[in-house]
Amino acid sequence: MKKVNVGLMGMGTIGTGSYKILEMNREIIEKNTGCDIRITRILERDTTRDRGINVPMSLFTQDPDDIYNDPDIDIVIEMLGSHDPSFMISCMKAGKSVVTANKAVIAAHFDELNKVAEENNVKLMYEASVGGGIPILNAITTVLGGNEFVEILGILNGTTNYMLTKMTEYGLDYDDVLKDAQEKGFAEPDPTADVEGIDVANKVCILMALGFGHYVHPSEIPTIGITGVTKEAIEEAKANDCKIKLIGSIKKNEDGEIEYSVAPRQIPNDHPLASVSNEFNAIYVTGNAVDELMFYGKGAGAFPTGSAVIGDVMEIAKQL
Amino acid sequence: MKKVNVGLMGMGTIGTGSYKILEMNREIIEKNTGCDIRITRILERDTTRDRGINVPMSLFTQDPDDIYNDPDIDIVIEMLGSHDPSFMISCMKAGKSVVTANKAVIAAHFDELNKVAEENNVKLMYEASVGGGIPILNAITTVLGGNEFVEILGILNGTTNYMLTKMTEYGLDYDDVLKDAQEKGFAEPDPTADVEGIDVANKVCILMALGFGHYVHPSEIPTIGITGVTKEAIEEAKANDCKIKLIGSIKKNEDGEIEYSVAPRQIPNDHPLASVSNEFNAIYVTGNAVDELMFYGKGAGAFPTGSAVIGDVMEIAKQL
Repeated sequence: MKKVNVGLMGMGTIGTGSYKILEMNREIIEKNTGCDIRITRILERDTTRDRGINVPMSLFTQDPDDIYNDPDIDIVIEMLGSHDPSFMISCMKAGKSVVTANKAVIAAHFDELNKVAEENNVKLMYEASVGGGIPILNAITTVLGGNEFVEILGILNGTTNYMLTKMTEYGLDYDDVLKDAQEKGFAEPDPTADVEGIDVANKVCILMALGFGHYVHPSEIPTIGITGVTKEAIEEAKANDCKIKLIGSIKKNEDGEIEYSVAPRQIPNDHPLASVSNEFNAIYVTGNAVDELMFYGKGAGAFPTGSAVIGDVMEIAKQL
Repeated sequence: MKKVNVGLMGMGTIGTGSYKILEMNREIIEKNTGCDIRITRILERDTTRDRGINVPMSLFTQDPDDIYNDPDIDIVIEMLGSHDPSFMISCMKAGKSVVTANKAVIAAHFDELNKVAEENNVKLMYEASVGGGIPILNAITTVLGGNEFVEILGILNGTTNYMLTKMTEYGLDYDDVLKDAQEKGFAEPDPTADVEGIDVANKVCILMALGFGHYVHPSEIPTIGITGVTKEAIEEAKANDCKIKLIGSIKKNEDGEIEYSVAPRQIPNDHPLASVSNEFNAIYVTGNAVDELMFYGKGAGAFPTGSAVIGDVMEIAKQL
């Protein structure tokens, strides 16, 4: 069986989830790829935290060069959560394919990173960066590749969707649901990237680049978060038979121009996106051949996001 | 640019849809594959029907040998709608990859057809056979391949879902909605394969073989259609906050055994499948890593199904 060695940079939530999935589903993964895929090196400072799984201490290093310079490593899972693209670039220049969930880096450095991948004849895959476990990037770039996309609408952030759902269900104020979401671990202590729509803008950037062949830096995507959504606005939406959702939107208009934004919108109750509640994500795609499609699932979490990471690793392993 | 020649066997609804998509989206398809994909031969008796598109008469033939023996044809789209696997087998034995939407033939001859493909080192792809334009087979065999699937529940037949939706919305009897569906073209004059669940059993067979590695001939899948669903049963479901849906189901039970069936079921209104109305299809997948996912879209129609056919053709073309 073909041996495929993987370096893991960063063993936080998703890194740990990916490691566990590789162990838990080893048999299935071997059967589906014909490869023996193993994480053979882990860049991580915190070697003592209880991750609920036995990781041999010999795997850990604090020196990224131990990954770049290891000729036996074929693929690197980059989960450092940093805004610095240099880790991925160094991996690819060392001839290693890269898998990541890091939407901020992919969105901000899309062209550069893809160019480095091409120049070094390696793969760069980031299914986990949009919609967590939902296989949306694979779908729009492979099996739906015969479509001209007309519109993509996404509920792309679980934190804000959870908060809007609670505001809608219980008539609560923004400040109260934020506190609740923070207590439940759905929102970060500093919720800015989520509630201001920055996280969604990164995902819109990636969907637009892949689905419409049109790259716009995320800072140039008009972005309104949910901090201005009031109890009254929610009530008004209800009166219109609508729900307010934070929607990342990309649309080809009648002149063939691409319009894009992130903003709270009233979604009619009979639209499939209206029934996407709590921390779930969904992407609603309209193609000129396939018509309407919706992909629904968990947009975050160690295992759902790890599922997408491992799916990318498997795809690269098969092609090695 | 790499030239890829395609033979089309059968130019009915989906065959015509596939032909049109190749013309309509030629530029996008070339960009996404790097291939110039053209239908160069069409096996079809009816050369005069108005298909809303200009097809050169020189493409038509009535002799399948003109496709089998054409050394320039790389891929054959088989849309004959026959129950006879010999057309696909002859294509593959002649070294041609095959793309089809023919769920009945794939389900009944799954192992044999896949074996012929392997022996002849060609591809056999049938994304369009389950869920029409919904890219479910690609998802469960590639990007979700790192999951052990726990359960797959599907609304896999648009005709019966349309009928059940109308019974639910208007309190109508089975016979009345069947007549309405036939008048609107959603049901065939002989609706047996749809209303008796046979079509869904074929799709369950294919989903189970690919997702659970477990092949069961469709005739051995316990199958109950919707002919016994009464107005009263619909009312009873409503009283339970449920909707009746025809569900194709595959589940790994606690002993690791795989249970499968096709039957009308009460689905709670807060389950994502409950809001799948009219002719739409949806597949609800639970994996041990990705958790819950739902794929929603049009399960039939020339363009949605043709989108899946062309997606398969493009995937093969890229690998040629």
